[in-house]
Amino acid sequence: MTSIAYLGPVGTNTETVALSYKKTILKESTIDLHPYPSIALAVRAVAQAEVDLAVAPVENSTEGGIAITLDSLWEYQTLRIQKELVLPISHLLLSRGASLKGIKHVYSHPQALAQCQKWLESNLPHTQIIPANSTTEALHHINGEPTAAAIASPRAAEIYNLPILASNISDYPDNCTRFWVLGRQTTQKGNRISLAFSVAENIPGALVKPLQALAKRHLNLSRIESRPTKRSLGEYIFFLDLEATQGEEQTKLALQELSQYTEIVKIFGEYEVSII
Amino acid sequence: MTSIAYLGPVGTNTETVALSYKKTILKESTIDLHPYPSIALAVRAVAQAEVDLAVAPVENSTEGGIAITLDSLWEYQTLRIQKELVLPISHLLLSRGASLKGIKHVYSHPQALAQCQKWLESNLPHTQIIPANSTTEALHHINGEPTAAAIASPRAAEIYNLPILASNISDYPDNCTRFWVLGRQTTQKGNRISLAFSVAENIPGALVKPLQALAKRHLNLSRIESRPTKRSLGEYIFFLDLEATQGEEQTKLALQELSQYTEIVKIFGEYEVSII
Repeated sequence: MTSIAYLGPVGTNTETVALSYKKTILKESTIDLHPYPSIALAVRAVAQAEVDLAVAPVENSTEGGIAITLDSLWEYQTLRIQKELVLPISHLLLSRGASLKGIKHVYSHPQALAQCQKWLESNLPHTQIIPANSTTEALHHINGEPTAAAIASPRAAEIYNLPILASNISDYPDNCTRFWVLGRQTTQKGNRISLAFSVAENIPGALVKPLQALAKRHLNLSRIESRPTKRSLGEYIFFLDLEATQGEEQTKLALQELSQYTEIVKIFGEYEVSII
Repeated sequence: MTSIAYLGPVGTNTETVALSYKKTILKESTIDLHPYPSIALAVRAVAQAEVDLAVAPVENSTEGGIAITLDSLWEYQTLRIQKELVLPISHLLLSRGASLKGIKHVYSHPQALAQCQKWLESNLPHTQIIPANSTTEALHHINGEPTAAAIASPRAAEIYNLPILASNISDYPDNCTRFWVLGRQTTQKGNRISLAFSVAENIPGALVKPLQALAKRHLNLSRIESRPTKRSLGEYIFFLDLEATQGEEQTKLALQELSQYTEIVKIFGEYEVSII
């Protein structure tokens, strides 16, 4: 029986992804889902072998990278990406109140609030926006409080039997989030490689050379993101996703050359991507 | 009399920066400070000419870029950077309670919570962490509730006369945040240029060429950060800070070449950097 950590409580988008992974990939009838109060704690649980796997968001199409997931991968030596699942995000406005007019407070996870910011400004301009630790935790506030609403998932609306005041309230169409299934096993079974490196020198030269090592071998980079080293302002770690497999000669050569131009390189896994 | 928008209420780190700008740069005795409930609304206020200036955080040494500030600069055509101020961040744990042992809830802005995450895990492992819209807004929760604490600034502790339960609780030393003073005037009076560009093709080639245009002229890049275009996963806008002035020939040539390799380039200003 596989144990999986996720950002809870039950009904978050992360739980939806964990359930999909259980059903379509693991095909185990019994599985142990463990809700955690934060992404940081869910990821730490797998790094410290308290659970087998953790599901964590990596990047949203509107809001960008999820810093805590990237920082945790860099920090914990044991973490490896097992699989990527992309979830189309459908944000609903849920409330016990009768109409939009009566809403005075809107609760949700800061990511969901940011993804619906323009909708909230247009439709609820005088409403107070209040962050919560997860989309599901936001629901605690709306029970018995008809002037409060929460932004949460269709699954949460169903499980907690909450009326939908507005649907599809994301500011941008095609809102979707990439999630990684993280474990401790080294994987080499897909066409996507994720890695990160830090550079010692100043950036233009230091970043040109590693990128040239990839470009001259026609390896496609589907993402590049910088994160601070946390040592001082202006020092960065670069997170890259490559469309490649480690078995190919061109990839091996590129990774060899990359390691010459960088301070530390960490390869987080070679894995498959599926859309839910 | 200059009007300045900032993330309020009174006592946030952003207000500290706004006050310092007023005192040391503008040297105006009367100035109009306008607190806003979010960074997004403060920045929009200056873009739409409701105020003269806005102060907004751009990047923290531990947590990285502030997405909403970068996204707003890209979105509103009128915004220009007037000045950068770097504030050393000192996080305090404030509470009416007598000791750490009794604390059950900790409130603060998600950035402050993230910057003190390890400290909280070590010192208050069984405490519930609750996000708030700003460090000062978090203080509303601790009055009359001795089991609650908030992470806020030294100025907030002083203004609201709140007891300090712990000092310097940032996870990493040298925690500091870069703030931009945003206005609508084009500036050309410093040694830092900030710009952003989107690229049409796939990344490795598309990013190598603009970076080469800078590297071959020995222009130093003090930051590079990617943000999603919000159109679809895998399309990015790159935000760059250059150590250069627009008057120099080498900079002009580099920017000309940059525009050949990119889809849209936006220059947000040439400005000076000061440490508070």
